Amino acid sequence: MAAGRLKDEKADALLVTFSANVRYLCGFTGSSGALLLWSGGARFFTDPRYTIQASREVDCPAETVKGPLLKAVADRIRRLKFKRIAFEGARIGFDDYQFLKDHLALGAALKPAAGWIERQRMVKSDGEIERIRKSVRTNSAAYERVLKKVRPGIRESELAAELDFQMRRLGADGCAFETIVACGERTALPHARPTAAKLENDQLLLIDMGASQDGYASDMTRVSHFGRPKQKIREMYRAVLEAQLAAISRVRAGRYASEVDAAARKVLKSYQLDREFIHSTGHGLGLEIHEPPRLGKKEKARLEAGMVITIEPGVYVEGRGGIRIEDTVLVTETGCEILTPTPKELVSL
Amino acid sequence: MAAGRLKDEKADALLVTFSANVRYLCGFTGSSGALLLWSGGARFFTDPRYTIQASREVDCPAETVKGPLLKAVADRIRRLKFKRIAFEGARIGFDDYQFLKDHLALGAALKPAAGWIERQRMVKSDGEIERIRKSVRTNSAAYERVLKKVRPGIRESELAAELDFQMRRLGADGCAFETIVACGERTALPHARPTAAKLENDQLLLIDMGASQDGYASDMTRVSHFGRPKQKIREMYRAVLEAQLAAISRVRAGRYASEVDAAARKVLKSYQLDREFIHSTGHGLGLEIHEPPRLGKKEKARLEAGMVITIEPGVYVEGRGGIRIEDTVLVTETGCEILTPTPKELVSL
Repeated sequence: MAAGRLKDEKADALLVTFSANVRYLCGFTGSSGALLLWSGGARFFTDPRYTIQASREVDCPAETVKGPLLKAVADRIRRLKFKRIAFEGARIGFDDYQFLKDHLALGAALKPAAGWIERQRMVKSDGEIERIRKSVRTNSAAYERVLKKVRPGIRESELAAELDFQMRRLGADGCAFETIVACGERTALPHARPTAAKLENDQLLLIDMGASQDGYASDMTRVSHFGRPKQKIREMYRAVLEAQLAAISRVRAGRYASEVDAAARKVLKSYQLDREFIHSTGHGLGLEIHEPPRLGKKEKARLEAGMVITIEPGVYVEGRGGIRIEDTVLVTETGCEILTPTPKELVSL
Repeated sequence: MAAGRLKDEKADALLVTFSANVRYLCGFTGSSGALLLWSGGARFFTDPRYTIQASREVDCPAETVKGPLLKAVADRIRRLKFKRIAFEGARIGFDDYQFLKDHLALGAALKPAAGWIERQRMVKSDGEIERIRKSVRTNSAAYERVLKKVRPGIRESELAAELDFQMRRLGADGCAFETIVACGERTALPHARPTAAKLENDQLLLIDMGASQDGYASDMTRVSHFGRPKQKIREMYRAVLEAQLAAISRVRAGRYASEVDAAARKVLKSYQLDREFIHSTGHGLGLEIHEPPRLGKKEKARLEAGMVITIEPGVYVEGRGGIRIEDTVLVTETGCEILTPTPKELVSL
């Protein structure tokens, strides 16, 4: 990508500083690294803590720097006589930008490069899809293991800790995001953080969790119920499940992301629940838990084979509770593959 | 602080965007917030997901914003006719800076404010010290609980997962940083990430861990040994412990941070181990795991009563292993209080 894009954008080089993008392009998994790319060359910069790790992971010439990495980057840019350097404006701090600018030669200019690498990362390679499959399996296995043992009286925070622990035991590096465990009326908060509240009989239980494995995220939401759910809850659940399946049935390479979102909204409207669906239908995921594309009302992006996205409609009714059902899904030429193996019927615990 | 500092720096207002600083100043614990402070006033901005949370947590007028927070911030700045706005240059992204600048009135200027709030955060209030005490107790309790059960054959990664799980069960929000578990020769890597390696007999085991509780960090390192350690290891351990105690004995309000560091180095030099001590002696901690002051060779800062710092000398010998001993310590007028209760003799497991 870099060479063609650099030419199109009339830039001599691209400086990559965001860790997920650095990892994607050169393999480095540490926290302190910068990558300079130009037509026909690349150079990686890190600090002495990571010299050994870089020599094992990075597939281009690597330089260990004492002192600020960006000083060494600027020196290299001067030596290579580059005049227009694209940089990640959304990913670099203002002070770092200023430092870099101050250390470049007179006449050299920095030019924001918005989303170049993120664009490329949207479509996953076979190797990336394999890592996401592993992450999804770990996540579902942890969920199923813990769900079997859930009893009334356990606290949301204990359950979250147990889920995270099982993911780690099953091979995850950690969580892809802070695990959401909400019971009862708190399920109506889409971003509920686990509290000390104890799960009780006749309550909804919503769990939204994802593993990070070999750097790659998974994402799943399931709702269960202690005891037999009331009819209102069963109806809400059925509406959300129908909306989720309708959205999934629209996923296919070439479709607009907004069409998938519209399919979920249409079903919920038929149940007069569309106004309770207060977020978008899904998002891409990979090295980050939230990546483009977004599956929202106004999204112009088209889906492409190899994208990995979530499908997660939800409805939230204050005082009653919330239902969200979420799978991780691979976009294919002919439709999609639902990666998440966990069943979706409403479980009574 | 804000009013006086604003006057000194000839600024009309300070924009705070870094989450730990926002939390420190107005109490908001969510992830999306900005705080504008001026002489005699303050205003908090967040998005609709956090309206309820902000109304519970934030102690100044709060505004819920649809769309970019910084647009609403810029509008407010225009309305208040502020001309010079200090901002957190080290904490704001370049694109956000540019967006803000583009939305201000002509003639208004942004002025980097380096470390204003971080400076203030160095000295902890009684309430903050109480939270750090809790975090320290949770951390030590989790360590002691897990250490009792450690047997040869357990993997570094399993042990790390177990430590993190126990911290959560004991009341932590999570880890203050990725728990380090290293055995055998890997103890010589100061930033070892847990691997699938199994612990064996006649090996060192280094654990560096910290809880985050009610937002506040703790930090502790302990080394133990499977079986009776060889004399070389016992000598290395004794040297590091002596260095750590010497450094602690120098901690006191009014002392230079560099004096504390020098005390540790002097002891290690007497054992000809000073060249193996490749990092600084400690750092402040609080809402972040690494805060000023740094206790390094050239640090000009003086310690003040109420600072909470780590004291953590270490030596690392490739092929033999590493020893680091670390406590969390409160600086007082007359010396210090070692907050970490875990014993420091070399434990044979």
